[in-house]
Amino acid sequence: MTMAATKQTAEDEIRGLLDTWADASRAKDVDAIVAHCATGLVAFDCHGPLRFESAGAYRKHLEACLPCMQGPMTLEIRDLDITAEGDVGFCHYLARCGGTGPDGTEHSSWFRGTSCFQRTNGTWKIVHEHLSAPFDAESGKASLGLEP
Amino acid sequence: MTMAATKQTAEDEIRGLLDTWADASRAKDVDAIVAHCATGLVAFDCHGPLRFESAGAYRKHLEACLPCMQGPMTLEIRDLDITAEGDVGFCHYLARCGGTGPDGTEHSSWFRGTSCFQRTNGTWKIVHEHLSAPFDAESGKASLGLEP
Repeated sequence: MTMAATKQTAEDEIRGLLDTWADASRAKDVDAIVAHCATGLVAFDCHGPLRFESAGAYRKHLEACLPCMQGPMTLEIRDLDITAEGDVGFCHYLARCGGTGPDGTEHSSWFRGTSCFQRTNGTWKIVHEHLSAPFDAESGKASLGLEP
Repeated sequence: MTMAATKQTAEDEIRGLLDTWADASRAKDVDAIVAHCATGLVAFDCHGPLRFESAGAYRKHLEACLPCMQGPMTLEIRDLDITAEGDVGFCHYLARCGGTGPDGTEHSSWFRGTSCFQRTNGTWKIVHEHLSAPFDAESGKASLGLEP
């Protein structure tokens, strides 16, 4: 393969990983979500502590958060941009995340996502994930009503 | 060079870029900060809108924000982790950012940072930057008092 074709293949593989990761997230299937992550994952989530320093710590966070929603999680991804070369890649996107809360109403907000990947023994894994909302500098509140 | 040595060189070059970017940020030198960014930079900043879709849009944001602080900006980086191969790389870190506000008192908070890089014609540039604070799910407020 040419270098351009190899790069295209790596980006396609990462796109495939993200598709199955998004399906696992919508299904709130923690095992399937964490199966996409390297053991040494460092995750910065939109709420909670500053960071999670392993896939195990991130799993505990997901196990605590995901049941707060009733039914499947809303996860709409747009403006996905993937870059990869060799065994290293990254992407960024906007994600509308949400679900039905304990009060029975649907809540969702747009977040910003960055994921970083490494391929080991032929398998791509998420080694770093960063999901966030910006905050309003005046009120100090997370800006959960923004539209792209 | 061996592949491991080439990878080490790329990571060292990115570390050097981050050092000069951090110095430029501390000096609030917008020209020097933006000189590290690719024209097509997509930036997710800790406050403000969801995203900035070019280095020019990010420059305007910096020009509006940085003068709000008196004197140099505080920028302490820790737990920097860099991965690179070929002409693609990424890193994540924690950053204590702040400065002296209009009221004369110093404010700083810990943020999470992710930067993604590409090398074109031998020069590394930041093509994506993501800086954020997590928010507290109960209060909806950005968590600006967290310590690593």
